Amino acid sequence: MASTLNQKEAPGNQSSWETLLPDFPKGPLCSYRKKASFDWRELAVLLDGEDIIQLKNRVFSSLESDPLFAHHHGEDLCREKYQELTFLRLKRLFEYDFVTQQEAMENPLKLLTMVVCVGMYDWSVCLQYCLHCGIFGCFALTELSHGTNTKGIRTTATFDPNTQEFIIHTPDFEAAKVWAGNMGKHATHAVVYAQLYTPDGQCHGLNSFIVQIRDTKTLLPMPGVMVGDIGKKVGQNGLDNGFAMFHKVRIPKENILNVAGDVTAEGKYSSAVQDAKERFSAALGSLSTGRIMITTISITNLKLALSIAIRFSAARRQFGPTEDEEIPVLEYQTQQWRLLPYLAAAYALDHFSKSLFENFVEFYAGLLTKQRSQRQADMGREIHALSAASKPLSSWTAQQAAQECREACGGHGYLAMNRLGEIRNDNDPNCTYEGDNNVLIQQTSNYLISWMSCIRDKASFESPFGTINFLQDYHHILGWKFTASSAEECMDSSVPLAAYQWLVCYLLRESDLKLSKEKQSGRGDFEAKNNCQVYYCRSLAIAFIEQTALQRYHDYTHDPSISPALQPVLKNLSALYGLWSLSKHLAVLYQGGYAAGEHAGKFIQNAILELCCRLKDDAVALVDVFAPPDFILNSPIGKANGELYKNMWTEILQGSKALSRPSWWAEFCINKPVAGRLRSRL
Amino acid sequence: MASTLNQKEAPGNQSSWETLLPDFPKGPLCSYRKKASFDWRELAVLLDGEDIIQLKNRVFSSLESDPLFAHHHGEDLCREKYQELTFLRLKRLFEYDFVTQQEAMENPLKLLTMVVCVGMYDWSVCLQYCLHCGIFGCFALTELSHGTNTKGIRTTATFDPNTQEFIIHTPDFEAAKVWAGNMGKHATHAVVYAQLYTPDGQCHGLNSFIVQIRDTKTLLPMPGVMVGDIGKKVGQNGLDNGFAMFHKVRIPKENILNVAGDVTAEGKYSSAVQDAKERFSAALGSLSTGRIMITTISITNLKLALSIAIRFSAARRQFGPTEDEEIPVLEYQTQQWRLLPYLAAAYALDHFSKSLFENFVEFYAGLLTKQRSQRQADMGREIHALSAASKPLSSWTAQQAAQECREACGGHGYLAMNRLGEIRNDNDPNCTYEGDNNVLIQQTSNYLISWMSCIRDKASFESPFGTINFLQDYHHILGWKFTASSAEECMDSSVPLAAYQWLVCYLLRESDLKLSKEKQSGRGDFEAKNNCQVYYCRSLAIAFIEQTALQRYHDYTHDPSISPALQPVLKNLSALYGLWSLSKHLAVLYQGGYAAGEHAGKFIQNAILELCCRLKDDAVALVDVFAPPDFILNSPIGKANGELYKNMWTEILQGSKALSRPSWWAEFCINKPVAGRLRSRL
Repeated sequence: MASTLNQKEAPGNQSSWETLLPDFPKGPLCSYRKKASFDWRELAVLLDGEDIIQLKNRVFSSLESDPLFAHHHGEDLCREKYQELTFLRLKRLFEYDFVTQQEAMENPLKLLTMVVCVGMYDWSVCLQYCLHCGIFGCFALTELSHGTNTKGIRTTATFDPNTQEFIIHTPDFEAAKVWAGNMGKHATHAVVYAQLYTPDGQCHGLNSFIVQIRDTKTLLPMPGVMVGDIGKKVGQNGLDNGFAMFHKVRIPKENILNVAGDVTAEGKYSSAVQDAKERFSAALGSLSTGRIMITTISITNLKLALSIAIRFSAARRQFGPTEDEEIPVLEYQTQQWRLLPYLAAAYALDHFSKSLFENFVEFYAGLLTKQRSQRQADMGREIHALSAASKPLSSWTAQQAAQECREACGGHGYLAMNRLGEIRNDNDPNCTYEGDNNVLIQQTSNYLISWMSCIRDKASFESPFGTINFLQDYHHILGWKFTASSAEECMDSSVPLAAYQWLVCYLLRESDLKLSKEKQSGRGDFEAKNNCQVYYCRSLAIAFIEQTALQRYHDYTHDPSISPALQPVLKNLSALYGLWSLSKHLAVLYQGGYAAGEHAGKFIQNAILELCCRLKDDAVALVDVFAPPDFILNSPIGKANGELYKNMWTEILQGSKALSRPSWWAEFCINKPVAGRLRSRL
Repeated sequence: MASTLNQKEAPGNQSSWETLLPDFPKGPLCSYRKKASFDWRELAVLLDGEDIIQLKNRVFSSLESDPLFAHHHGEDLCREKYQELTFLRLKRLFEYDFVTQQEAMENPLKLLTMVVCVGMYDWSVCLQYCLHCGIFGCFALTELSHGTNTKGIRTTATFDPNTQEFIIHTPDFEAAKVWAGNMGKHATHAVVYAQLYTPDGQCHGLNSFIVQIRDTKTLLPMPGVMVGDIGKKVGQNGLDNGFAMFHKVRIPKENILNVAGDVTAEGKYSSAVQDAKERFSAALGSLSTGRIMITTISITNLKLALSIAIRFSAARRQFGPTEDEEIPVLEYQTQQWRLLPYLAAAYALDHFSKSLFENFVEFYAGLLTKQRSQRQADMGREIHALSAASKPLSSWTAQQAAQECREACGGHGYLAMNRLGEIRNDNDPNCTYEGDNNVLIQQTSNYLISWMSCIRDKASFESPFGTINFLQDYHHILGWKFTASSAEECMDSSVPLAAYQWLVCYLLRESDLKLSKEKQSGRGDFEAKNNCQVYYCRSLAIAFIEQTALQRYHDYTHDPSISPALQPVLKNLSALYGLWSLSKHLAVLYQGGYAAGEHAGKFIQNAILELCCRLKDDAVALVDVFAPPDFILNSPIGKANGELYKNMWTEILQGSKALSRPSWWAEFCINKPVAGRLRSRL
């Protein structure tokens, strides 16, 4: 894989870094910052480059200086007000124009960075912005009774040659469009997916149409359109998701988005793509962008949650070896083990997502320039397989991390002001939209199994991004064993990496065998595949994407171009991510005979604990590298000064009615409950 | 263990059951209900008995008929309004007096049942009720900078012999009381934990005092008291958690709660308990009640989440073997595997929590009658060890289940109206309060390790509730191996139970060894214990409590008194819970040499999948047994009629502003963002 991720502009001098990345305020975190084994600025510059850091600073400081983006601490912001604010902020983002078209063309990562910076502030406005920027300002695919199975969509678009119009119609409420972002309150036009019918009564499958749903001057619904708000969600409530039903709504013929096909004036359908199956894929192809995006969003949530929990853990003291001395909770083995593997995951997956984005840019460039080469098609398949697993891996990791961080911060983590609940609630849909994780991941195992014929034939093969190239050694790898003879020896990511390569080959063999067995016993394709998911194809896809992420991070951290001052900490992160992820598959390593005896497991476990211990003094500096400014992070216990109690106390007292008597006080005084009345019963 | 759980009143006849437990409405769930292998009413009566079912019906129907308990669907209920409603509902609960004092004395389970019924409706009002019923109407222990380490509490209570008063004082804001339930808005008195100082300047440790914080007529703060609302939480926002600071607040001498100690008129401290350590335990002893309660609350959340997700999965159809036919998502192996083990857990843990409650009642009766026997002390230690692990086990299980259920219901699970977000958010603090799970669970491993000297001495020993009696065979059990020769053979809970007994013995040996090693290498007690948590003591405590729960459910389901019509399904649940829980420890089974070779793992995995498949047709009936009525469950996709789309559609349209134009429409029309402007960049 050709990568530019190692090739950032030559680092500037220390003084220019200090302007870019100012000192953190003094406070309880200083001692950890002093203990760090590396210069956090050097790592920040290595990862992002000065250009990107400047862009981040510009976005962050613009939002902080703009009263429209002021936080509403301690206020009970109702959903309508929040949606209004989100919309006003969206408009402001367009005015800021942080990344010009020229800049975005030259370096697409800038656009992604900008979007992520806004997301760190608030995902609702970020997602609304993404929807408005993409072609799908209001994307109406999902129906009340069909989501994952998009072929089951029942909205119809019937061509009327007399008027040269399509008639968009919802047969019943179960076919109502639901969930479309921006549709709830403000979108005026929607991209509606519907089954296209020609006058001969034939159905030509799913096509997309631009349908006006609201009057642009009054925001009132168009005739025949019933449109509204889907209601409160678990999170992301600034975004107005909506529903719509169409009662024989007529739209001009040219409103068909002829990606998949088109209709002649006479009502004859012509497909842009020959094969019906390919046509379907083309219509949905645009969803891949979303999965790459969600991968990045999830990893951003991972970073946010960790920034809060690690700073909290370094500042919060509880218990100690003597009565008089309390130690930071980060000093406890359990706390390290709960948080630091996720910190390693944040670094490894961040690198992976950037490399995946690079792959995607290469693929997309080919798409835009209408490449029809085999390589272009292969890239498409590989990107699809990668993004279909990177989204589940990153969204699940972020979800689990957010939960762990919430718990690791104890009661304070449960206060809404500290933001861990919001991060978890806002991250949640990443597991679901653009393909439910458990369903989506089947795309990846299908892709892997598709290579089995080459493997069996011992044919030579490779993929454009190289992720499956190691499968050429399949037969050889299956003979590998765990050979490390100490925990120390395991503390390089080459050890878990080798284990992962064996694991992928083993699970590939097992999944393929299982699939054959199911088919031999007379089951149809559909049932056979369903019966091979748990412990087989599902595990295979997860192991493969973890292996891919680890391989890339291993290569990156072991590259000789990495500064010797940074290499030790980065190698520790790589090893910890690898071992910790692998440890969840430990039973399979034993089961399949890769590992045997008590030592293998113990070495891995001891290496994980030792790496946690080595990384604990670097942990604060490692989150300093990626944590956004306090204003953006917006969490009293996560602030850079580490003064968690002062920060929380200030914010508690800022609560709009914190000290005031409840408006319903008279209710209390008139007719008090008899407290303790049931005391003797308990 | 003597248990009355098998000894319910003789089941009535079928017609009396039908009055107690009316038919479910016809609809899409009928087909599953017909396929069930057992009579759901028979199981409901077995589990609860007619008396308890009648009580549940009374509570549920009272709430449903009372407009004060009407749901506020589609409204944006602000926190203040929610807290007011919660308070009014609390008062109403006292008026209902569902369980009289007499009834509660005769059968304490009735009080617990009533509380849980209210909790199923809403945890905020339930917890407020529990707080008001218990002695601790407003329990102020935790401070801003100290929670888990209660010894670090810094509020002082200094006795002034001149006025015969205690002076309650908060030295600084870091010692402000925080989190106290009911304190935020309405409590007039609080039980405040403070370090007691006598006039000689000596500190006598933590004692509790009744302090008036608000005027009972006006609800305004008392002089010297700064009291207020701690702010929005991730969940449970009907409950007003608060903070308080005391500036030399004087309270009469008799306001000391002399559980731990007392002070003479001259200012001499006399402890109710001799030993300082024991005194401390006595002061905190009351917390055990809470842990048993939280165990039950968590399992209730588990049941609520499953009721919703399983009914959804049985009604929701997506994809199918042919283009024309879609099958319920419950038919997919992955969906079964995601949900049905949690269903098994709900049954097993529900039984466990009831048996634990029985144990607790026995212990508590001894406490009330001031038993000073060795058995009473042993019961105290055992209950403490059990509740310190049952709370983590049940709260974590519920948390993971709520997340899995949320995801398993896809986008619809993310709509707030379907309640899975609320269940997850409300369950979250169960992992934290009354002792952070990871810290609390150390009590259990300490207890287990304390038996090692008996084990080493091969002394005979037993505990009042028998949970550690199997450790007498420790040396023998350590020699056991996994011997099942087929998946079929694994499908009885005796197989995972034997594995668990080995696992507990193995982890006990390893933890004890590790602890000795740490101490031998010169580490102090504190550090040595901290270094033995991950992979050792923590795993030990978890394995032990899972083993205990499984042992009790195994005994229950294999009891010959269970009706033969019910035994098969109950045995399947017991086996599935056992195998699925055990599968998370599979690596340790291999590592420690209990299992070897490919077959052991595969048998267990295949048995889990086969049990899931066998239970899928029973799943709807199994949730029918414990699901509360629709009004209480309050989830359109979880309604008993299974008409998920009709139910959702109705509720979407009931959204107070679902169809109305946003109040900020003019903002939109004046200055629209240029949608698609950046289209070419993405």
